[in-house]
Amino acid sequence: MLMAQADQPTPLKGLFAPSAVAIVGASRKEGKIGYSILRNVIDSGYGGELYPINPNEDEILGRRCYASLADCPGPVDLAVIAVPAAAVAAVAEECGCQGVKSLVVITAGYKEIGREGLAREKELLATVRRHGMRMLGPNCLGLMDTHTPLNASFAAGFPLKGDIAFLSQSGAVCAAILDWSLSVGLGFSKFVSLGNKADLTETDFIRDAALDTYSKVILCYIEDVVDGEAFLETARQVGARTPVVILKSGSSQAGARAASSHTGALAGSDLAYEVAFSQAGVLRARTMEELFDLAIAFTTQPLPVGDRVGIVTNSGGPGIIATDAVEARGLKMAELARETVEALRQGLPPTASFYNPVDVIGDADDRRYDFALSHVLADPGVDSVVCLLTRPAVINPALVARAIVARRREHPAKPVVAAFLGGENVAEASRELVAAGVPCFSFPERAVTALSGLARYRGFRERDREAHHPLTVKGVDRGRAAAALDRAREDRRVVLLADETMEVMRAYGVAVVPSGLARGPEEAVVLAKQLGYPVALKVASPQILHKTDFGGVRLGIKSPKETMQAFFEIVEDTQRHLPRASIYGVEVQKMMPPGTELIVGMSRDVHFGPLLMFGLGGIYVNLFRDVSFRLARGLTWGEIEAMLADTKAFALLKGYRGKRPADVDAVIDTLGRVAALVLDFPEIAELDVNPLFAYERGEGVCALDVKITLSE
Amino acid sequence: MLMAQADQPTPLKGLFAPSAVAIVGASRKEGKIGYSILRNVIDSGYGGELYPINPNEDEILGRRCYASLADCPGPVDLAVIAVPAAAVAAVAEECGCQGVKSLVVITAGYKEIGREGLAREKELLATVRRHGMRMLGPNCLGLMDTHTPLNASFAAGFPLKGDIAFLSQSGAVCAAILDWSLSVGLGFSKFVSLGNKADLTETDFIRDAALDTYSKVILCYIEDVVDGEAFLETARQVGARTPVVILKSGSSQAGARAASSHTGALAGSDLAYEVAFSQAGVLRARTMEELFDLAIAFTTQPLPVGDRVGIVTNSGGPGIIATDAVEARGLKMAELARETVEALRQGLPPTASFYNPVDVIGDADDRRYDFALSHVLADPGVDSVVCLLTRPAVINPALVARAIVARRREHPAKPVVAAFLGGENVAEASRELVAAGVPCFSFPERAVTALSGLARYRGFRERDREAHHPLTVKGVDRGRAAAALDRAREDRRVVLLADETMEVMRAYGVAVVPSGLARGPEEAVVLAKQLGYPVALKVASPQILHKTDFGGVRLGIKSPKETMQAFFEIVEDTQRHLPRASIYGVEVQKMMPPGTELIVGMSRDVHFGPLLMFGLGGIYVNLFRDVSFRLARGLTWGEIEAMLADTKAFALLKGYRGKRPADVDAVIDTLGRVAALVLDFPEIAELDVNPLFAYERGEGVCALDVKITLSE
Repeated sequence: MLMAQADQPTPLKGLFAPSAVAIVGASRKEGKIGYSILRNVIDSGYGGELYPINPNEDEILGRRCYASLADCPGPVDLAVIAVPAAAVAAVAEECGCQGVKSLVVITAGYKEIGREGLAREKELLATVRRHGMRMLGPNCLGLMDTHTPLNASFAAGFPLKGDIAFLSQSGAVCAAILDWSLSVGLGFSKFVSLGNKADLTETDFIRDAALDTYSKVILCYIEDVVDGEAFLETARQVGARTPVVILKSGSSQAGARAASSHTGALAGSDLAYEVAFSQAGVLRARTMEELFDLAIAFTTQPLPVGDRVGIVTNSGGPGIIATDAVEARGLKMAELARETVEALRQGLPPTASFYNPVDVIGDADDRRYDFALSHVLADPGVDSVVCLLTRPAVINPALVARAIVARRREHPAKPVVAAFLGGENVAEASRELVAAGVPCFSFPERAVTALSGLARYRGFRERDREAHHPLTVKGVDRGRAAAALDRAREDRRVVLLADETMEVMRAYGVAVVPSGLARGPEEAVVLAKQLGYPVALKVASPQILHKTDFGGVRLGIKSPKETMQAFFEIVEDTQRHLPRASIYGVEVQKMMPPGTELIVGMSRDVHFGPLLMFGLGGIYVNLFRDVSFRLARGLTWGEIEAMLADTKAFALLKGYRGKRPADVDAVIDTLGRVAALVLDFPEIAELDVNPLFAYERGEGVCALDVKITLSE
Repeated sequence: MLMAQADQPTPLKGLFAPSAVAIVGASRKEGKIGYSILRNVIDSGYGGELYPINPNEDEILGRRCYASLADCPGPVDLAVIAVPAAAVAAVAEECGCQGVKSLVVITAGYKEIGREGLAREKELLATVRRHGMRMLGPNCLGLMDTHTPLNASFAAGFPLKGDIAFLSQSGAVCAAILDWSLSVGLGFSKFVSLGNKADLTETDFIRDAALDTYSKVILCYIEDVVDGEAFLETARQVGARTPVVILKSGSSQAGARAASSHTGALAGSDLAYEVAFSQAGVLRARTMEELFDLAIAFTTQPLPVGDRVGIVTNSGGPGIIATDAVEARGLKMAELARETVEALRQGLPPTASFYNPVDVIGDADDRRYDFALSHVLADPGVDSVVCLLTRPAVINPALVARAIVARRREHPAKPVVAAFLGGENVAEASRELVAAGVPCFSFPERAVTALSGLARYRGFRERDREAHHPLTVKGVDRGRAAAALDRAREDRRVVLLADETMEVMRAYGVAVVPSGLARGPEEAVVLAKQLGYPVALKVASPQILHKTDFGGVRLGIKSPKETMQAFFEIVEDTQRHLPRASIYGVEVQKMMPPGTELIVGMSRDVHFGPLLMFGLGGIYVNLFRDVSFRLARGLTWGEIEAMLADTKAFALLKGYRGKRPADVDAVIDTLGRVAALVLDFPEIAELDVNPLFAYERGEGVCALDVKITLSE
């Protein structure tokens, strides 16, 4: 686990807290990026050495200018580079030679502009790596650290000091968040514009922020991740201590297209991101607004111990709206203790509501509101509280705000959020709440959404605290599987034949239907006898994935005579329908008793690797899409169980409407074995077990048909 | 269809534009409701006669006071009543005698406080009805009309003049919306606090607003509807001309409980509301924020002719975020014409994006932005445009705002919405846009949500323009069905026996399995012979709904001997399991060939009447819940088709994966007949046809099992 240690520098200390900074390309012209950066560094109050580099100037903004890095009077930790793209490589080379350890390359004109830029970016990266430097960018706004303090960016403005670390793949989103934070008074620890992420990526900055002792929550806007495996691993470790909230765009088909034209990112399928974030314990914000609201909640509130929400309101309508939101966001309405209800009944007028949501009604003053709040907050069945206020005739919003702040101090372990409705009439009171660390929103729904983020994160943490059983599967013969895969490869096939897939599955201990490949009718009869009638015959041809469509399958064959006849028919039918298909023979399979039809599959995601699928099989796969997904990497037995439970098919397996329960353990075991297989063999691009028959408890499973496709 | 006619008064003109208003309970004490109302009427600039009524005062706020209505020097159109609850009935009586036509009863203490209050409310309503008056309230804030102008409420503040009619069942939500509208500068035509809705309801006010010539959109916050049938009918008519946007709370289980304790509303199931709103063409807002945003969109923008959205942005990230939102909200990203792309390529720098979203990139000034916008707006494949701006170094937001306003005028038929990101830096420009009628939001997602509301409403309108085939079914023998229902009622049963349900279905022309009731084994044998073997035998007992659970069913009986034996076994098994069940005999049914198993059902909603259900039948009903719903009232054949298409089962019916298509027409016909049946017989509380077998096209359907429950 990552642990922050106050006395140890974080890996990226050289970027965020350098002793000396050089601005390469510093300019005296207002409006120029090289001017803005220098001005920002100075304005931020940076206390280290500062060297503007510009061979044509003696002095800018009162600072002595240097012709080159070599001319600087002392060592340089960080070079911020804002020279034209064609000159960057030479500057980077010089930085390397001069012992500079960290670069921020502001300059654009790299992979985001196409092939030429990509080549330039590769060259730059090679220089950086050769000298053992680290680089942010290119094509970024720069970075800021409010604790150093240092504003090494050309953004307009510097955030307030605070405890949110923010990373953004979009400079525009960076700027928007900065502006917004200033308008609402929210503080940040660091601000990073990731740019093209040629060297340092979101994963590096997430890891660093988790170690920096002053970042309480890590907020990200990203369009892709560079290294899915490293991201997963880091996010999992960081998430155990520091919440990570990510707005990941490009979730739509069209959005993904826009992403690749924007940053040249090879956007992965959104499904893999969804699964990865959930498995890694990363909170995904759905909108910019939610990203903001979650940031506020995490920096000001403790994590609730449970999902039970209490609501105090001075009007019915907003109370009902908030109640709806509580259930819609997966939280629960707290059931107040009898004592609480009794106390409220004693102290509130008879027309008030003593149950949750507690409505002190419109003629309440701040004391009545405070009375109700104190009892609701103290109720042991309440894990968090939403305070609603509508501007009414008699109540003083500022006094209610103060009451909320005071009561909250008595229960520091319970999150308290507020929504004050009333525009300008409650603006002052809202500001007072926010200043005292109680998030105050203009709508009830947003207050509840903020709470639900805290609860979701707590859920992730609890899940991660539970005993993890790492995936180890026994009885695996890796060499045997490799041999089968090799046969296909030697044969220049990307699709395995049935006997090969069955061999691979057997090698990994997956129960498969007894079968064999018959090259001629007599061989088929011998095999059928060995397997025992009835049998099924299926054409074996690498060109035919959907055998039934071409008369390539015969089921329920009961005698040697029928076997012979079926063999001939299959070969004839196939040749007639697909004259160019090469026929390797006919697969003879034992007919298995019917079980619950399941599907187990895998497709390989470009960012996160093997993505496993489980669900109901047979004809309903495509109709109901009752399937669930998990990334194979880092998968645990517990997660596989959860994967089953995510589907409606799970109800069938547990014994639906009087049916006897199926062998769930065997299904879980099969998924674990498939996960091990696809992790061991990266060349397996896709895999489908459809159907997998699940039998009654103790009777196991059986893979009836398995397709394996290799990457080209 | 409702048509606004400028020269004709609306039905509620007496409430909104009275010639003379009396304030009964006017007070001189600041802080008193009777003071606030009088003050508000005066401050709103009301130009008619105003009579404060208070026997203890001569004059309040410079207005002469009268001891009673009878003392007023002229006739009173509207009486606003703010006296204690105990005195209201007498005042209402006096109003009636004095010829007052409209009442606004502000006073609380009615059904919202329980039994005693409910009785008081009934008495009040009786008085109102006896005198032919109309009443808003009791227990409300009052009403406002900015065009009269009149503020007959005790709310603090008066909205700006505009074209949004707003109705609210919650006074607090009323106040919140009022405050918010003032802070953003949005205008309203009327504001109605509905209160307890004892006489006038949301439906009356929706109908009236649609006729008032100055309300362009009707906005509602409600917790229930009083008369579902009238609401549906009115909303349908109004929706064809004026958009109706409703935030309906109490959608959650817990929310519904809060609703009934708050206003004493008998909250219907949220599902019925969802279906009713959709069928009536009412837009449902999910949050208060969405309600606001849709109001802004509808009052400022035309309806788009299609779903295709163009996006212009000066930064990539927000463009991608908006693109995601476009797809998430059911809109489509426009594909720009080749000419548009070419023009953009000519006029924009090479690193810009010429495809949708069009990104003029960060160094753009307002002219470049305007250039791109002009081409995107003019593209015939673009139905609406989202303008995004991130505060950058060089662009002037105010100039961009002006460009948007100017370009929009060139294309008045296309909605244009904006999102300017940048807090205080873009605040002035945002205000300029809003003032010029271009909604400007602080986040891209909200801009897209506003657009999607316009598109959804257009969809409703288009649907309603399509030819409606009203539900008329032929071959119905109503008397025969009534006779079967009567038999059960005479027998004091609420559950019909199989032979009765089959009789009812046959009377309505629904194809049912041939069957008959056998009272003894010999009768069973005779019936079986008539029907033809194989047959099924099922116990007939009003106490047994789930026959299979008690050994009450035998299938696949092939001979007289088996029939006799099955009869005895069924009776014995049933008597052993349920000794107190009365057994009416055994139902003998022909065994039908298997078809696609469907379910058709009906449950009666307390507000909206019969709610039909259609979906996949058999064991999957509860597992996949692949069902869709429609209200029977006002249903059309087209809607029934859409109801089928809403389910995944529809793919099965159309011929899934090589299966032959089922007799969809017969399924639709069956649903129409069931709708007719449950509309004809309000005493049918619930009905289930499960399974309904659907056969191949042309072969019809067959109801295998039908349950009918009557209301007690």
